[in-house]
Order: sequence, then C-alpha cells, then structure tokens
Amino acid sequence: MALGVAGSNPVRRPLKIAIVGATGLVGRKILEVLEERLWKENPEIIPLASKRSEGKFVEFLGKKIEVIPIEYGIPNVDFAIFSAGSDVARTYAPLFVEKGAVVIDNSSAFRLDPNVPLVVPEVNPEEAFKHRGIISNPNCSTIQMVVFLKPLLSAFGIEEVFVATYQAVSGAGMRGIIALNEEEKGGIFDETPFPTRIYRNVIPQIGEFSEGYSTEEWKMIRETKKILKSDVKVYPTTVRVPVEIGHSEAITVILRSSPSLSDVYDVLEKQEGLKVLRDGFATPVDVEDKDFVVASRIRFSPENPRALSAWVVADNLRKGAATNAVQILQLLIGGLG
Amino acid sequence: MALGVAGSNPVRRPLKIAIVGATGLVGRKILEVLEERLWKENPEIIPLASKRSEGKFVEFLGKKIEVIPIEYGIPNVDFAIFSAGSDVARTYAPLFVEKGAVVIDNSSAFRLDPNVPLVVPEVNPEEAFKHRGIISNPNCSTIQMVVFLKPLLSAFGIEEVFVATYQAVSGAGMRGIIALNEEEKGGIFDETPFPTRIYRNVIPQIGEFSEGYSTEEWKMIRETKKILKSDVKVYPTTVRVPVEIGHSEAITVILRSSPSLSDVYDVLEKQEGLKVLRDGFATPVDVEDKDFVVASRIRFSPENPRALSAWVVADNLRKGAATNAVQILQLLIGGLG
Repeated sequence: MALGVAGSNPVRRPLKIAIVGATGLVGRKILEVLEERLWKENPEIIPLASKRSEGKFVEFLGKKIEVIPIEYGIPNVDFAIFSAGSDVARTYAPLFVEKGAVVIDNSSAFRLDPNVPLVVPEVNPEEAFKHRGIISNPNCSTIQMVVFLKPLLSAFGIEEVFVATYQAVSGAGMRGIIALNEEEKGGIFDETPFPTRIYRNVIPQIGEFSEGYSTEEWKMIRETKKILKSDVKVYPTTVRVPVEIGHSEAITVILRSSPSLSDVYDVLEKQEGLKVLRDGFATPVDVEDKDFVVASRIRFSPENPRALSAWVVADNLRKGAATNAVQILQLLIGGLG
Repeated sequence: MALGVAGSNPVRRPLKIAIVGATGLVGRKILEVLEERLWKENPEIIPLASKRSEGKFVEFLGKKIEVIPIEYGIPNVDFAIFSAGSDVARTYAPLFVEKGAVVIDNSSAFRLDPNVPLVVPEVNPEEAFKHRGIISNPNCSTIQMVVFLKPLLSAFGIEEVFVATYQAVSGAGMRGIIALNEEEKGGIFDETPFPTRIYRNVIPQIGEFSEGYSTEEWKMIRETKKILKSDVKVYPTTVRVPVEIGHSEAITVILRSSPSLSDVYDVLEKQEGLKVLRDGFATPVDVEDKDFVVASRIRFSPENPRALSAWVVADNLRKGAATNAVQILQLLIGGLG
C-alpha cells in the first residue's frame, strides 16, 4: 500500500469530498452531518457507491447529485469518507491515498493497523495528524465508551471495564431496520442481518464468534486499548435490542483510586462531547440526532469505593459513525468547532 | 406477627390452596403451573383478589371458580400463594399464618426478614423447612442469577458479580404488556408502569432510585447475599427492554480460583434447574413457558483467567415467579420432582 506523507493536510478550496457508500444508512447520515457542519465551506461532494446504486441521486445543500459507481474509477479528491464495509475499504482506500486523498474509513479494515490512527476527536485528536493517508473511525460502541472513559483514565486511572451493550438495529444498516419493521408486521425479512428474531427479543450476538467472543466484543476489547493507549481490561457483552437508533451501555469501571462522586462529576463535566446528567437518565430515544454522548446514573457501588457505574447512551449513526468521521475531517482542516 | 412452628408441614388431603392476586398476570400463571404440577393432588383452589375483581372467574383443571374479594375474610387453607404486592402481603399474610396456613409470598415485603426463608428450591431447599409461616419467593432477576451462581460458588468461590439485565415488560404485570402494545400502535397508555416510552427504547430504571441504585438493583445486591449465604459483591444495572416475556442477564463473575472451561461446564451441567448450551445462545423467545434457566455464551475473559462471563435467560413469569413459588410448595409437601 502506498501511503502519503504523515500529517499532510489538503488546503485547496473548495474542498472535494468523496463519500464511498453514499446511499447507505451511514452514508446518507454523513451527507446530513457535512451539510450541518461544512455548509460555509460549500464543499464539492462526489457520492460513490456500488454499481447496484447506478442512477440513484443524493441531495447535498439543495442540489441533486448523481451517485457514481466506484468501479468506474477513482476521482481526484481531498478527502474520501468510506462507509462501505471492510472489503470495499481494503480494495479502494489505497487507491484514493495513491491519488493524494486522505481517507477516513468507517470499517474495521485498518483500525488495528499500527500505521493507521484510530481517532475519536474529543479523546485522541493528536493521533489524527500522524496519518499516512488513512484514518480509521472506531466501532460505534467503542466511540461512545471511550468518550466516557478518557477523563476517568486521565484523572483516576482505570484497571477494568465491565460493559454490557444495548445496540440498536440501525447498527446493522438499513436491513436491520427493515428486519425489525417486517417482523413487527408479522412477516419475515429474508435479508435480515440478524441470526434470529429481533422483534420483542434481544440477541447476544453481533458479528461472528471466535474464542467465545463476538466480533463486536473483540472490537471493544482491542480498539479501547489502542485509543486510550492503555492496557485497560475490557469485559464486554454486546447485545442487539429492538431499538431503531441509539446504543446504550451499562458500564462498571474499576478505578485505580477512590475519588468522591463530586470529583467524578467535575472531571466528567469537563470532557468535550460528553453531557452528564446528575439526575435521571437518558434513553436511546432521547439522544436521537444528537452529536454528544450522554452519561447518566453515575454512582459508586455500595460495596466497593473504586467501582463506578454509569449508563452511557449515544446516537450510533451520528456520534457512533457519521459525526465522528466528519469531526475527524474538521480536525484536519482546522475547523473543529 | 404471630408465626407458626418452624417446619410445620400440612398433610391434609385434598390440599386447600389460596391464590391471593389470582386475576393478575403471575396469579394466572400460578394456576397454570399448579395444574401442570399438582393435577394428581387435585387440590382445592380458592382464588382471592381485591374487590375490583368481584364477579370474575378463573379456571382450574376444567372448573370455573369464582374469585372472592380478600376483604370478605380469610379462608382456612393449607397454603396461600401471594402475588399481590407488598402492601397486601403485609396486611394479609400474617392473618393466613394465624389460621395455620403456610404463606409463599412473591412480593418483597418479607424477603430480607431474618425470620423468613428466601428460597430457590434448586439452590437452598433446606431453608424452606425453617419457615415460621411465611416463605418468600425472591425477585425474578435474582432467581435466575443464583441458579447460575450457586454451583460456581460451591466449586470455585465467587468474589464479585457484574450483571446487566434485559428485563421483559411482563415483569411490570399486565399493564407493562398493555403499555408496550399501545405504544406500538402509536398510542399512549395512561396507566403505563414505565417512567418513559418503552416501545423501541430501553429504560435503565426498574423501581425507584435510592443512593443511585434502583429498587430492582438493591434486590439483586441484597437477596443474592441472603440466598447464597455469601458476602459476594454484586454490581447490577437493571434495564427494561421491549420484550414481552423472558429476562436476560449479561453476567461476569470474578471467581476465587481459575478452573478450566471444561471444569466450569461440568459443574454447571450438574446444577438442577439449569440448562447449559455449549454452542450458540438462548434468547427470551426461546425460554418462554420453560421452567428452567438457560446459561449460554459461557467464556473466560482473554484478559483474566478468573473472569467468567455468561448469558443467562429465563421466563420471568414462570421460573422467575410462578414456578418457583409452586416448587416451594412441592418441596414442603414432599413432591418436588
């Protein structure tokens, strides 16, 4: 793979941005977030997808733009935001890099590559500038967890993280939402991405199992260590629930010290991208279309002054995917607000 | 409160059994389980409820039986199974005991009373015989968890238990099911037992909060210690999910030793009332109407040879409530199969 010079930032205006996987659920969300955050830049958007999407259009800042099959060639762009799965990323991301673009990839293809930064802008922004052409966007459940863990790690140290997730069907793309809708109507969706019924059910499998852990769980174990640059032990159980948008996480952290709850609030409330509720709680429905992570039900165990629990919720399509990718782009062009 | 002699067991036949709260969701389930398990005994059933249920009938072994308001007086019975909430239990259970009956109570009213056994028949059957008139049925999420924990505690010792629950709406009774159904149809149910929308949402509150923990979480912390006679630390987050029947639990146990996975399977597979899946997993839909607890996804953490995780599922209305209560009754009459 030919990679560019570390930290090279495009400065050309107007920005040219390719969206690879533009017709997917996250692809469309990326266009939405780009409109909200980069409308002043008035970037030129080149929506790409597979041949199946030929003839489709997307909208950006009031203009209809035709979707181009990626098989037809690699355009010259400043940035390419990929949301098209690992295979497409492995095939096409290096081709964009060869042509001088910076790739921000939503798939897991390059996340654990030591030459590829894995970035959550509120957590490890400095990493983004070390890129050699590709920057990886972490897994959705990992992103929202590290926004909560980072300030705790810096202030108090973390030994262990016990986490159980409640993940929305939209994490499996449009087919996930269709499966839930069809099952609710009493039907069956042949292309369901789930291993069994999700309507009025919960499924403790996201991805495939290896050595007892699912792909999603391995992502949480490994990506967390890389982003936090810490050998923190992560004990995950990841579970699909019949929710449309918004992942929730029941987290218990074993800290290395035993601060007061008031100290914990002070530290968490200073964390960028994190909203802290001292009373009540947030549910998935509450965070839909929000770009921040919400931590609520923050409490110390009555049995252990180093065991801190919380309920952490975020919009998996926005902060868990599209927003985080666009924030990385903003970081590189110096425009992260 | 006047309590009977410890361990006194009625022997009279046919058995007379009062069901207090007979028209509720669990009450009806108790009748169903009694039919299945005690049809040979052909017991005489006296269904009781509040005045609101006057004129209603229930069915038992093909006979229609009129529901009697409990306010009209306490009948002479051998057993009274209560499933009518804590207030009703506190008011009426002692009156049944005064008349010589043994009360098996589903509410939390007496669970932590040192004079009242808290019994899961597969876990601590010996306790049942120490009763002084009242035996408490544990909380649903606690029952299924201790069936999984008990063999691990006996064989390997347990230091800590991290648990996140996925609890069905039927745990909140018929109103819970109606709330989910109405919200699914786009309506709102005025008598919803939930603090916010449950349809396509998850809610990290079951009961009321005190000192940061919900009633349900305190039950898991305290009842587990009492049933297991162990000061095991429990770190719970209890969450309502849009599932009709069946509670799920993501559990990580820190053992006192580090056995092999094969040793763990051997020990778990000997536990009565527990079905162990070595491959795949069970979901709430799979355990509906089952009387056993299912443990699947049993795995050691790659980071800690003493950290064992599992996914534990059971029918909250049966093993989590009705079946456990009837099993206690069977234990006392010597008929637990």
